[in-house]
Amino acid sequence: MAEKIYNTEILSVGTELLLGHVTNTDARDISEQLAEIGINVRYHTVVGDNPERLEQCVAIAKNRADIIITTGGLGPTCDDLTKQIVAKAFGVSLVRDEEEFQGLYDYLSARGNYTENTIQQVMLPEGCTVFHNTCGTAPGCAFEKDGTLVVMLPGPPKECRTMMRRSVIPFLRSISDEQLVSHSVRIFGLGESRVDDIFAEEMNRMTNPTMAPYAKECDCFLQITAKAKTEAEAEAMCCPVIQRVKERLGDVVYGVDIECVEESAFALLHAQGKTFAAAESCTGGDVARRFTELPGASALFKGGVVVYTNEAKATLLGLDPEMIESEGAVSFAVAAELAENVRSLLASDFGVGITGLAGPDGDGVHEVGTVFVSLATENETFVRELHLGTHRSRGFIRRMAGNHAYDMLRRYLSGLPVIL
Amino acid sequence: MAEKIYNTEILSVGTELLLGHVTNTDARDISEQLAEIGINVRYHTVVGDNPERLEQCVAIAKNRADIIITTGGLGPTCDDLTKQIVAKAFGVSLVRDEEEFQGLYDYLSARGNYTENTIQQVMLPEGCTVFHNTCGTAPGCAFEKDGTLVVMLPGPPKECRTMMRRSVIPFLRSISDEQLVSHSVRIFGLGESRVDDIFAEEMNRMTNPTMAPYAKECDCFLQITAKAKTEAEAEAMCCPVIQRVKERLGDVVYGVDIECVEESAFALLHAQGKTFAAAESCTGGDVARRFTELPGASALFKGGVVVYTNEAKATLLGLDPEMIESEGAVSFAVAAELAENVRSLLASDFGVGITGLAGPDGDGVHEVGTVFVSLATENETFVRELHLGTHRSRGFIRRMAGNHAYDMLRRYLSGLPVIL
Repeated sequence: MAEKIYNTEILSVGTELLLGHVTNTDARDISEQLAEIGINVRYHTVVGDNPERLEQCVAIAKNRADIIITTGGLGPTCDDLTKQIVAKAFGVSLVRDEEEFQGLYDYLSARGNYTENTIQQVMLPEGCTVFHNTCGTAPGCAFEKDGTLVVMLPGPPKECRTMMRRSVIPFLRSISDEQLVSHSVRIFGLGESRVDDIFAEEMNRMTNPTMAPYAKECDCFLQITAKAKTEAEAEAMCCPVIQRVKERLGDVVYGVDIECVEESAFALLHAQGKTFAAAESCTGGDVARRFTELPGASALFKGGVVVYTNEAKATLLGLDPEMIESEGAVSFAVAAELAENVRSLLASDFGVGITGLAGPDGDGVHEVGTVFVSLATENETFVRELHLGTHRSRGFIRRMAGNHAYDMLRRYLSGLPVIL
Repeated sequence: MAEKIYNTEILSVGTELLLGHVTNTDARDISEQLAEIGINVRYHTVVGDNPERLEQCVAIAKNRADIIITTGGLGPTCDDLTKQIVAKAFGVSLVRDEEEFQGLYDYLSARGNYTENTIQQVMLPEGCTVFHNTCGTAPGCAFEKDGTLVVMLPGPPKECRTMMRRSVIPFLRSISDEQLVSHSVRIFGLGESRVDDIFAEEMNRMTNPTMAPYAKECDCFLQITAKAKTEAEAEAMCCPVIQRVKERLGDVVYGVDIECVEESAFALLHAQGKTFAAAESCTGGDVARRFTELPGASALFKGGVVVYTNEAKATLLGLDPEMIESEGAVSFAVAAELAENVRSLLASDFGVGITGLAGPDGDGVHEVGTVFVSLATENETFVRELHLGTHRSRGFIRRMAGNHAYDMLRRYLSGLPVIL
């Protein structure tokens, strides 16, 4: 890939996207992976399964982008038009890829599902690079024509994301004159604008590596990107910057190149052979759900209880109803007992407790957004009192409360002060 | 709105979308709401905060769409360019909207946050219809010029979605010669292709109302849309079709115009004054999390336990470790006891139990995707044995298992057979 190639358009094909039945997560996933190797995405376009409109969109993309990545429309049904239209627009012919054909033929014949239509999936642009689909049947591909690099990927999110990671990213690296390496330093407990203030001057001066701050819903991160002749050189250029950022920001950095604070807690629990259990009121199971989405969680998570009602707090965890009455269900004392009691009940190393008001209704005592998050250890119990904002959505308050729980856990496991 | 106006383009403005930091849920939300009133969306486009590229995208949209809906770029910072660029492209001037200015001025002054920049937010196209923002500060607007209707909405998802629902949909209805009414009949337990087979002939014959089947990840629905001079007439045309579909499909229809099967269970529990509790193994808290996302859940949900480990099943719910050993943790018997024991422990009317293999690893006995879902009532316990597919993702298996739990609950509460 010559250095000039860097304006990318992602063209997603599928009427279901235009009807709002599904969200275009493919465009997000591809953009995120391309950003990691420093390729700029300039446009996302979505068009339906309609040959004329698709053809027009391909013409527009050809005119304004150096790399076109299509998603969707590679399957065997008559709706699946992407390859035919793209091949026509670039004047290339579709030919049967024998290796993919044989694999698909064997697979489908064994199941009695082989039909003539299925051949359509293995008709690929002549001379293209073929990307085998490890999660589905339709292969992807890439070819270069008229100075444009065209990549075609399947639409189902898992197939698309996996093919990007396994095949397309290495392919793009292999044809590039220079290698880009990018890392994200994840931050919880300091807002994007504060991070921006701290590094503004430094970031303005930087050209290679570059550094930029980004906000997510409940946390933020700094993206550091370097380019060099080799991946190792680029990596070596990022390293001291990451180190400097970590030193400057200190313990609000919860990880590098991970997605969420529970991943950090997971890694620390795993490394130290420790377990935890959770007692949740307002988060309603979300803390348990988030952790158990990570494969391998069962060895580290002893279990959880969802104690929405005062009765459940008493029955499941033995909280004294009179104490709940006098202190209030949303209180420091109840949070502390939730964590302590679930810890001892499930014989885990740590207990997490959450009680609060996620809204939309208040309790007449606290504002919506008031949450107490607690961590019980063998020797002590920590409680954070949060005021997450009366205007915030139920979903935001629940996710933010969960972030605090995992942040307390990772801080304790890292030997840092637990209360900010 | 003349009848010819119906090709819509959604143009989302924001570099964060191109970097993959956020998913374009605005385009999905807007598309979904427009589909409900029968307006066709032809294109979604995403472009960054760059004046030249945004200008080009507006020119393309103007050329191919009758309605352009922009999202994002209405705020007070120098990145926020949408109104300036759109106004220039359509040759309209931006003037200060006095009502919005006064409201914003009072709001910000009271907080000491007023700055000159903030005025930018209330500079709107001359003569436009103003949409007040009930969830944020930047108003939206609509104007018609050169035969194109332009609608500009704020980017934050909650603001965008709320403004669509409260202001834009009524506005589009008000300027239309004809009224469109659309309903979705939600189906669980029968796939989209079977639904398509059943109604194919009828759907081909229908012109007004129209009917079309759509697949979601774990269920599907039939969308029925009628147009008429008045909303009441259109409504009256949909009614008998919905009735016919319900009669034909029977008890796999779980609701009309709702989003998910837990909403159906919620409504039935609420109407009958009943409660439930949940004991979850492989879903890890997701069943509790889904229900407690619905405001008002606390009155109907007695609580839940997440019993990932055999120890937790014994400690929290009193399951006999020897029984778990002999039957296996993933078994009919364990599922039944989970539901029965959580029901009696939390003194709820119903108990739900789930145990299974969400993957990626198996247990050497069952295939990944094997799940037992149970419902305990006062007099009996029902268990569904599911084989959700070895190639499915962990997330899919967990969501599908949860759907079955809520489906069993709503079937029991509706007096239908619980086991399919």
